Amino acid sequence: MESKKIRVGITHGDINGIGYEVILKTFSDPVMLELCTPVIYGSPKVAAYHRKAMDISANFSIVNTAADMQDGKVNVVNCISDELKVELSKPTAEAGKAALLALDRAVKEYQEGLFDVLVTAPVNNQTVQSDASRFSGHAEYLQERAGEGEKALSVLVRNDFRIALATGMVPLHEVSELLTKEMVSEKIAAFFRSLKVDFGIDNPRIAVLGLNPHAGENGLTGMEEQQAIIPAMKEMIAKGIQCFGPYSADSLIASGNLARFDGVLAMYYDQGMIPFRMVAMEDGVGFTAGLPIVHAAPVHGTAYDIAGQGVASENSFRQAIYLAIDVYRNRCVEKEISAHPLRRQYYEKKDDSDKLKHLNTPEED
Amino acid sequence: MESKKIRVGITHGDINGIGYEVILKTFSDPVMLELCTPVIYGSPKVAAYHRKAMDISANFSIVNTAADMQDGKVNVVNCISDELKVELSKPTAEAGKAALLALDRAVKEYQEGLFDVLVTAPVNNQTVQSDASRFSGHAEYLQERAGEGEKALSVLVRNDFRIALATGMVPLHEVSELLTKEMVSEKIAAFFRSLKVDFGIDNPRIAVLGLNPHAGENGLTGMEEQQAIIPAMKEMIAKGIQCFGPYSADSLIASGNLARFDGVLAMYYDQGMIPFRMVAMEDGVGFTAGLPIVHAAPVHGTAYDIAGQGVASENSFRQAIYLAIDVYRNRCVEKEISAHPLRRQYYEKKDDSDKLKHLNTPEED
Repeated sequence: MESKKIRVGITHGDINGIGYEVILKTFSDPVMLELCTPVIYGSPKVAAYHRKAMDISANFSIVNTAADMQDGKVNVVNCISDELKVELSKPTAEAGKAALLALDRAVKEYQEGLFDVLVTAPVNNQTVQSDASRFSGHAEYLQERAGEGEKALSVLVRNDFRIALATGMVPLHEVSELLTKEMVSEKIAAFFRSLKVDFGIDNPRIAVLGLNPHAGENGLTGMEEQQAIIPAMKEMIAKGIQCFGPYSADSLIASGNLARFDGVLAMYYDQGMIPFRMVAMEDGVGFTAGLPIVHAAPVHGTAYDIAGQGVASENSFRQAIYLAIDVYRNRCVEKEISAHPLRRQYYEKKDDSDKLKHLNTPEED
Repeated sequence: MESKKIRVGITHGDINGIGYEVILKTFSDPVMLELCTPVIYGSPKVAAYHRKAMDISANFSIVNTAADMQDGKVNVVNCISDELKVELSKPTAEAGKAALLALDRAVKEYQEGLFDVLVTAPVNNQTVQSDASRFSGHAEYLQERAGEGEKALSVLVRNDFRIALATGMVPLHEVSELLTKEMVSEKIAAFFRSLKVDFGIDNPRIAVLGLNPHAGENGLTGMEEQQAIIPAMKEMIAKGIQCFGPYSADSLIASGNLARFDGVLAMYYDQGMIPFRMVAMEDGVGFTAGLPIVHAAPVHGTAYDIAGQGVASENSFRQAIYLAIDVYRNRCVEKEISAHPLRRQYYEKKDDSDKLKHLNTPEED
């Protein structure tokens, strides 16, 4: 097991929102520095501004790069050369640019091996747009910059409640086209791997939601279930992945049956986000699975309505750090135990499908 | 005010589900018969079967038609001439046909003026299909049969939490096309009228949800907000209707701000149903606004998983009866006070827009 402290890279997000408030509040608790060493990509001046404005008792040290970070301190890397104007609660181009500069720098230093996991404070999706490329969320950004060809899967996490989103920040009318059999298969497989490796669940059970009202009701309210979702599930079941459904989203989520699953795969953003935020507004975490980089973020946004007031809860941000650390450790364990596999026996068991035989999977019905 | 008892027509729904259980449990409480006179459209034999199977202490009298109903009794009209086989928890064609026969008969007798409000037990949308026409829910069925040219609007109700659905049981990929400016305007206006007349709210405030993630984020994640929803809202605001938004569905619903509105207009089925059932699985009611007939139904389905076990809660069904009665009374009051309007003054106030002037509507921003 790892014994040294895990290095957490943090981006400051939108400087006009509650980003610095939740970051600084989190590290005003000295226990956090026993758990990890943080390096904030942002602006020491803006950090000091927020600290003073809300009278938060957190100290930080300015470093030139994460390579210089010190254990036991909150390290801040200055990513912005210009003077930066904080305009609380306002979406400004300046703040958008500053958010992007911090992200770019963080990814660069991650690739140089200077920290282990990334936790991002919320950005404003509108101001963070650059001329060069469209920003559709941290997951997609990281997939492009640090994905190494892998695909990201956004997973919303709160304790044992985990909802993955098959599609993200795309127009709702595009979702149907995106949901091909191959795509859904890919998402189920990625979710399965993440539940196994990142969350350490031995043989995870996945509930798959339908796209249409009542999961299509056998074609009455839509065909995507029969054309893409069910065929994808069958393929995954044949590979030994326990997936169930597709369920009527409103029925499953409102029922007590949710607790029977280790993860729920939602077909689109609101289908997963609405129920998740209803139960986890205060302490939910968005996790990016599927990529080599471990990334987590609080589930709330920039919260302009309460920016600068000192009333924001840092709980979701702290949970994001905890989760990133947990996942990192789980991946290290997985790496260790799979590094020296036993020599193959004369026949090879196919995945862990023999474990599944006693279970009543849909195919056996 | 009405002093005579309100006559409640009830359809038995799917005989293999929990329909009879919740109906009979509701009327096993004698107080209910002081509030209203029920007439169940169904099968006395099947009612007796369920009563015996679950040992529910409710009596009923068989009548030929609602015209013969007696106060202080649970009246049952036999709508099915054939022998009817109950197969608990199974979707059977026989049960579907029986559900439809009861509905047809109830609507016929409603049109003859034999009862005042309709409460329907849940059907199985798949077995209830007939060759003659497609069944897409009670609201649409009633719109066709008893709508008198008016359009139905489904509203989910639990205490002061009311969510209307702009679209119903349609494939998700069709929703975008359906949401024209005219259609959204119509739904806002219908919701406004219902909140005013059916729920007795003087000057209701309506929150409108966006269709796309984060309500489109000014076009980043979809255009329906700008092309249809916002123009429709502007039109309605100009007519003096207080509507706000469009809001990011996940943010608004998860926030405490929901309580600031008398109603929420969701754009599609799951967007409204997921959050509603999460908070109101046990006591939520589906109400059909917009039609001359007052119709309410429990928010749960046939619940095959617990059919015949005697464990179903009748609370949602009872709430449906309460709501139907409340709405009926509110409509009677409205009718009375608008029956003899005062003579017009020399100028006419436009709606109640003068009441609105002090409010900060989006147009004034």
